Amino acid sequence: MSRLFMFEKPLGMRDTLPELYEKKHGVRTAMVDTIKLWGYQFIETPTLEYYETVGAASAILDAQLFKLLDKEGHTLVLRPDMTAPIARVAASKLLEEDFPIRLAYSANVYRAQQREGGRPAEFEQIGIECLNDDTVTSDGEVISLLISSLKKIDLPDFQVSVGHIGFVQELFLQILGTEERANALQKYLYEKNYVGYQEHVNSLTLSSIDKQRLLQFLELRGGEEVVGMALDLMENGKGKQAILQLKELWDVVSDYGVQEFVKFDLTIVSHMSYYSGVLFEVYAGNVGFPIGNGGRYSLIEKFGKKASATGFAIRLDMLLEALGTTKIETDTHCILFSQERRKEAFELGANLHEQGVKTVLQDITGVKNLDAYTKKFADTTYLIGGRSDE
Amino acid sequence: MSRLFMFEKPLGMRDTLPELYEKKHGVRTAMVDTIKLWGYQFIETPTLEYYETVGAASAILDAQLFKLLDKEGHTLVLRPDMTAPIARVAASKLLEEDFPIRLAYSANVYRAQQREGGRPAEFEQIGIECLNDDTVTSDGEVISLLISSLKKIDLPDFQVSVGHIGFVQELFLQILGTEERANALQKYLYEKNYVGYQEHVNSLTLSSIDKQRLLQFLELRGGEEVVGMALDLMENGKGKQAILQLKELWDVVSDYGVQEFVKFDLTIVSHMSYYSGVLFEVYAGNVGFPIGNGGRYSLIEKFGKKASATGFAIRLDMLLEALGTTKIETDTHCILFSQERRKEAFELGANLHEQGVKTVLQDITGVKNLDAYTKKFADTTYLIGGRSDE
Repeated sequence: MSRLFMFEKPLGMRDTLPELYEKKHGVRTAMVDTIKLWGYQFIETPTLEYYETVGAASAILDAQLFKLLDKEGHTLVLRPDMTAPIARVAASKLLEEDFPIRLAYSANVYRAQQREGGRPAEFEQIGIECLNDDTVTSDGEVISLLISSLKKIDLPDFQVSVGHIGFVQELFLQILGTEERANALQKYLYEKNYVGYQEHVNSLTLSSIDKQRLLQFLELRGGEEVVGMALDLMENGKGKQAILQLKELWDVVSDYGVQEFVKFDLTIVSHMSYYSGVLFEVYAGNVGFPIGNGGRYSLIEKFGKKASATGFAIRLDMLLEALGTTKIETDTHCILFSQERRKEAFELGANLHEQGVKTVLQDITGVKNLDAYTKKFADTTYLIGGRSDE
Repeated sequence: MSRLFMFEKPLGMRDTLPELYEKKHGVRTAMVDTIKLWGYQFIETPTLEYYETVGAASAILDAQLFKLLDKEGHTLVLRPDMTAPIARVAASKLLEEDFPIRLAYSANVYRAQQREGGRPAEFEQIGIECLNDDTVTSDGEVISLLISSLKKIDLPDFQVSVGHIGFVQELFLQILGTEERANALQKYLYEKNYVGYQEHVNSLTLSSIDKQRLLQFLELRGGEEVVGMALDLMENGKGKQAILQLKELWDVVSDYGVQEFVKFDLTIVSHMSYYSGVLFEVYAGNVGFPIGNGGRYSLIEKFGKKASATGFAIRLDMLLEALGTTKIETDTHCILFSQERRKEAFELGANLHEQGVKTVLQDITGVKNLDAYTKKFADTTYLIGGRSDE
């Protein structure tokens, strides 16, 4: 083992050192507390799952899965998301009782990186899933709880952009005729390449009215007024249904009093094939990627139960980036003692611990460079026997 | 995917459902808070590490490692313990500053199971490491902090059994002459097969005095008096040094006031080859295995820094088993509403959340079987518009 290699970690794998650890802990705790208040129950699922069950269901690209073989030759994966494992747990519960189920998690997920690029291959998601409740109310609850938990941690300058996969799919299919052509156009939306979208639309053989509709579609972003604009573009069928759901969703988040944080953006699509209705992305500050996302999906059906669900997942690392850096000052006290005064030191330490003061009890013979060591603490008490300079 | 296979999890992998999740959370939080008060800093390390660095250093049997290959063909492992990753982090820190370092963790570790037997392949350890402090005081600190944190969670009927690997090794080597013969005898201790140990000793070609010493060795269990008994068995050299360390350790835990929870047991050995001094096991209630263990080790040297460390690791699953089952009553309130009174329901919910009352807000049209659903809550408030029966 070479000297340099010794400290290396696999691609995308990181240590979380004390300061970042405490920041993560603080933000996680505040979000978790809010989620619990709303009646969501936290669960934990295994890090390893069968590829054939959860791995294949989870809609993460195959190349991003960490795979290994068990003794029987089955392929296992490190869970790439928590939505599929939660669907597995919920489906097996739902076979017993046919209720709305509210579950939550804070868990690391794993996505292999292809090259050095600073992107983590292991990161923590905090999320909720409201399962087996088909109402738009539950979509609104998920978005409102998300907003409430982000307000709780004083996240500045954030916004939830809401779209509807049903509307996009129906509009594109109606105008373009085939799934294939619809998917080709949708790809530009997924990449948020709007110039490419416009060029693609202009290159298509379509009536000028249909071209106009596809170009106007890009403008469906904003507040409540987007509902009316969207209905102008598609007045009937599944497309209209989707818009009426968005109208109801607006009413729900307004009743929750959080509509100021919500914006419609009907151009939102997802590479997750299981989304089936409302879907949304969370943006904050200057972070260039969504710090979280969510929506309604039909994943539970893959586990043999006809039911849909709605949920969100927030990436804790990106949330911390959006919150910005605040230096944490050390609040730890140090008691340095020699053997003669050991018992006195321990008693003082027990007192401080009782009062909630973080205190290190350090035998002075264990420290080589005293001056440098004590600089690491808020303050130091010396209990050194028989020395007159104390 | 067959119906039965659909819900299956890999061997030894488990879901943690809400009730157990909350119990784990409560116990973890209490232990973590105590550990932080003593000035230990929590860190997180990656789930995946290189086999050549952490995997090989961690002294867990190769057959118990979950291994996979990365894109470059390097072997990765799911971390089988936290001691080796912490040593990696500490060694890289110690290259900068040569201080005692106090680190802690609560993390899942992974050990592949060979067959169905109810043993988990993924479980959580809570632990601390006090690194780069060679004093017996720091061994005593680790044991005393362990005891304090277990007292904090009201664990009934527990005990820390303390031995010293240096004493066993020296005694066996002195009498048996070769490492090979010493290891053969040590194996019985590791398996806690004392009958087998006695039979093995009686079968050896040794003077009757030496046989007697090896048999008397088994009796070195108890309180402070064991120190004198052990010195009778081996009066000089490294063996005596080891016993003098145990004597000092007794004084340290007595100064901490926790000696009533400590017992000497010099027959304790470990399959972890990196232990180099004091080592201990924690027993509680009727749990047949140690719920935790620890000791002094020289693992950091594998990462290029000459320093020893001392620490403990507690298995959270076994700790919960020792704590026994207490049924958690649901404390969640439910508000069932119809659309007409939605806003009123949300306002009532916000009030209850503000007061810290866990409250589910449920649209009544999302529930199929009302009677059965409401039984899941501590109580239910109905806000159903226009119905006279409410």
